[in-house]
Amino acid sequence: MECGLLFSAGKDSSLSALLLEEFYDVTLVTAHFGFTENWTHARDAADALGFPFVEIELEKEIADEAVERMREDGFPRAGIQQVHEAAMEAAAAEYDVIADGTRRDDRVPTISRAVAQSLEDRHGVDYVAPLSGFGRGAIDRLVEARLTVESGPSETIQKGDYETELRERIRARWDESAVGEIFPDHAQTRVTGRK
Amino acid sequence: MECGLLFSAGKDSSLSALLLEEFYDVTLVTAHFGFTENWTHARDAADALGFPFVEIELEKEIADEAVERMREDGFPRAGIQQVHEAAMEAAAAEYDVIADGTRRDDRVPTISRAVAQSLEDRHGVDYVAPLSGFGRGAIDRLVEARLTVESGPSETIQKGDYETELRERIRARWDESAVGEIFPDHAQTRVTGRK
Repeated sequence: MECGLLFSAGKDSSLSALLLEEFYDVTLVTAHFGFTENWTHARDAADALGFPFVEIELEKEIADEAVERMREDGFPRAGIQQVHEAAMEAAAAEYDVIADGTRRDDRVPTISRAVAQSLEDRHGVDYVAPLSGFGRGAIDRLVEARLTVESGPSETIQKGDYETELRERIRARWDESAVGEIFPDHAQTRVTGRK
Repeated sequence: MECGLLFSAGKDSSLSALLLEEFYDVTLVTAHFGFTENWTHARDAADALGFPFVEIELEKEIADEAVERMREDGFPRAGIQQVHEAAMEAAAAEYDVIADGTRRDDRVPTISRAVAQSLEDRHGVDYVAPLSGFGRGAIDRLVEARLTVESGPSETIQKGDYETELRERIRARWDESAVGEIFPDHAQTRVTGRK
């Protein structure tokens, strides 16, 4: 079965790909808005991991709704969730099985049991989240054993996640200080290959 | 890393073993109370799947508490949950990583995020539930692709789950009608090997 796995080049989606590859024909799928070429970092990571790669361009209106929500909220959680659900919907139109790297301890993005069931019923797909039964410690140990990574602040580690493009959109619509108000500085990790 | 996966010879714990085998040294672990030799069906299924097997005998008091709870409730849910948590505790004393076959749509047994975190903190283990991000449909399709199974009513399909021994204990302490009042008739599936 063809499985489209939403992919950011981060640890969680990369490890998810390794967990699923024995069971499905996995394609790594990166959703973006066309604001930057950042999705190419995800493509490069997919190549390094040895998976086929597809990029999906979402409607720019989805980004605008998300950044407006973030600006109102003062934090990114609900806006990121909106974008993730839109990306899942887009993938569900293309694959028999859709997947993401949601972990047990994730607060966002996350797909509730109700949203999962709704995706499955409306699109006739299976939604699978192979890391949803793994905690942070288990994931760190598996990543350490299986993947090579590089880490650094958000601004220097370029990957194919939603955050990079949403930061760009916030910068374009408001200014740099709006980015800092919404997104706290935090370390990012990009996967560079398998061990 | 050594992973002890709670195993009943059913579809969910068998498929969990296949999902984890690339990442851990998996031993299939069947907990029982020594009331019957039913755990040997789990041992046979483990052999057929090609995994090492260990049986753990739990204290009979755990069974007695569980069947008293079931008799009071009129249904098995909370009693089964008690036994499952006791089995997880026993496995956590023996392995670096403990696992079970909990599915996304399971009501019982299930390990909440809080119980998972508590097991991990108290025992210094990782708890992983590889099917917790898979719904019924996805699991059925993977089982169909990977496992051979036989199905039938609970009384004829002997496996190594808690239900068989708890039925036996209820029969011994009360009578056959008490078994029928607590456990509705339902189909069981036992895994017989890989495809």
